[in-house]
Amino acid sequence: MSEVYAVRRGLLRDRYAAAGSAAALVSRPANVRYLAGAAPPGAVLLLGPREDVLLCPRAPSDHSVHGSPDEQLRLSILPDPAGDPVVAAAGLALSSDAGSLSVEENDLTVARHRAMLSVAPGLRLADLGLAVQQLRIVKDEEELACLRIAAEITDHALGELLESILVGRTERHLALELERRLVDHGADGPAFPTSVGTGPNSGRGRHRPSDRRVEEGDFLSVCLGANYRGYRCEIGRTFVIGTSPADWQIDLYDLVFAAQRGAREALVPGAAYRDVDRAARQLLDSAGHSEGLQPATGHGVGLEIDEDPQLAPTAMGKLDACVPVTVEPGVHLPGRGGVRIDDTLVVRPEADGGPELLTITTKELLAL
Amino acid sequence: MSEVYAVRRGLLRDRYAAAGSAAALVSRPANVRYLAGAAPPGAVLLLGPREDVLLCPRAPSDHSVHGSPDEQLRLSILPDPAGDPVVAAAGLALSSDAGSLSVEENDLTVARHRAMLSVAPGLRLADLGLAVQQLRIVKDEEELACLRIAAEITDHALGELLESILVGRTERHLALELERRLVDHGADGPAFPTSVGTGPNSGRGRHRPSDRRVEEGDFLSVCLGANYRGYRCEIGRTFVIGTSPADWQIDLYDLVFAAQRGAREALVPGAAYRDVDRAARQLLDSAGHSEGLQPATGHGVGLEIDEDPQLAPTAMGKLDACVPVTVEPGVHLPGRGGVRIDDTLVVRPEADGGPELLTITTKELLAL
Repeated sequence: MSEVYAVRRGLLRDRYAAAGSAAALVSRPANVRYLAGAAPPGAVLLLGPREDVLLCPRAPSDHSVHGSPDEQLRLSILPDPAGDPVVAAAGLALSSDAGSLSVEENDLTVARHRAMLSVAPGLRLADLGLAVQQLRIVKDEEELACLRIAAEITDHALGELLESILVGRTERHLALELERRLVDHGADGPAFPTSVGTGPNSGRGRHRPSDRRVEEGDFLSVCLGANYRGYRCEIGRTFVIGTSPADWQIDLYDLVFAAQRGAREALVPGAAYRDVDRAARQLLDSAGHSEGLQPATGHGVGLEIDEDPQLAPTAMGKLDACVPVTVEPGVHLPGRGGVRIDDTLVVRPEADGGPELLTITTKELLAL
Repeated sequence: MSEVYAVRRGLLRDRYAAAGSAAALVSRPANVRYLAGAAPPGAVLLLGPREDVLLCPRAPSDHSVHGSPDEQLRLSILPDPAGDPVVAAAGLALSSDAGSLSVEENDLTVARHRAMLSVAPGLRLADLGLAVQQLRIVKDEEELACLRIAAEITDHALGELLESILVGRTERHLALELERRLVDHGADGPAFPTSVGTGPNSGRGRHRPSDRRVEEGDFLSVCLGANYRGYRCEIGRTFVIGTSPADWQIDLYDLVFAAQRGAREALVPGAAYRDVDRAARQLLDSAGHSEGLQPATGHGVGLEIDEDPQLAPTAMGKLDACVPVTVEPGVHLPGRGGVRIDDTLVVRPEADGGPELLTITTKELLAL
């Protein structure tokens, strides 16, 4: 397993060497984890001209959930509890005659950047940009296996909730119960704060659970996901509470379902990100719901719950095979509620059977 | 209540005006909330020469838990879903002839800072430093009231756990149950990830709960806190499982208890931060536990769980009245476990009865 990280670091090295840097500093935690196998809190990774070093702040850290760093890396713990690992890295890069160091300008604050320059005035700081995020888009089989397990855990947690009595319970309690069930089934934790929306709150993206209780006739939307070994997936479903849904509920559900299916079917290698978005958005637009749609129909998932690519109207780029994404259109009618349907899928060529659906809970409109 | 925010913004304005800026941009979420009454995800606050504006990214945001922004603020929602509010703020500052804009260099990334300069090349960007964090150190009565409620909720959640059967349950389950109880008692959520450590894991700072089960004879350490209207407190206790603690457990407990009491008693207005730390650290050092002590004995709490002041050996500054802090020394013996005792207190003059203890759960060594 350790070789995986060395290979990833090698790919990154090719990128910044081509841009004229002899060394790079990775500070975004998910990027550190991707390249080092673990990301102790506050740790940064220096890829140097002579050696690669994981620099950790001096504090009792606990790696039990984060995994262990790659053994090929030197681990350096800062002597000063107030020390900043990026400043130490700048000193190290200077003393190893790196000359130029690429840093993640999207992650480093102006204050830390200044502090690096002041300890290493001879060092030229370049921008690594989103190079690591770009490497992370296409997943290897090990990563996809983690996502499959995360999705399985998520489906289990949701399935159990559907078997319990829901009327009278608050959104907060349902959300907490879902999170407990995720952990019961082996998740390291929730992938993101679980969202439960009832009645007028249903169908809203990332709704924060309130004290509203489930009532007969409500739409109930849930959105949850497991974090398994750092890999995060997402599922969203909308149900109706009571024996038979109202006509407007059936119509809205059918519409969102059709939009979601359209986008799922557009997931083929080579498809433009914006075309996947359009497959869902066009249908919702032409049904008169253009106001209040989410800015994206879906997004990549992996070590972060919202990563590249963005499936959005202005996104540039095309899908590759082995890219896991969400497809999650929704419509919310102010005061009435709405529907969101959200799956995590892996892009696969048609010859391999097309997109691989990871979250397999039914998308029929269930009356609970 | 709205006036509170205007007064805070006025105090900040005095600070950056004295430093020669006509406008300031606040981006750190806790700072935005402190000055605007609410911090929708991604929102930033521009304090301009003519008006104050809360700039929000274009995304369905849900303010139900965050509270409502101060009505004296203009609310501006960006038209472009991909737009960055700090860039929009730079344009606005330029068009209002601000000349110089103070920004939070401790929060802004290098990439966002560059993007601001590129849309507003005539604007001079200065550093606001930690001006808002400094305003936040001393709390008003409204803030202290929120912290008192947060502590009350926390004590309730912990008290209920102590009445339940613990042997055989995993650290993860106990942590999840504590978090559920926090919400049951009215918390908006946990103030930070709840820590539960058993046996060899006990006494570690910020230990992440594992699948280890509680056994007879274990030390059990818990650390939890409620978030109530954004205000966060912290309590940590260590218990022993079974009928009678071993001698080493009693000795270690007594030592940490004495260290914690020493630091609590040192909490008087005018005391140097480092002297509070020393009151606890000296005792643990001279008992031979200098290795592995946490870098700080305590820290401020408020809208963030770890804010200024730091009660640490190299910290500069002195305590004021109405500053809430934690006092949380601990000792961990590798392979055996340890003890941590953690309270949240408010610094008060001796004439007012000395430090106000918010977390009142007993600190006797309970055998559960």
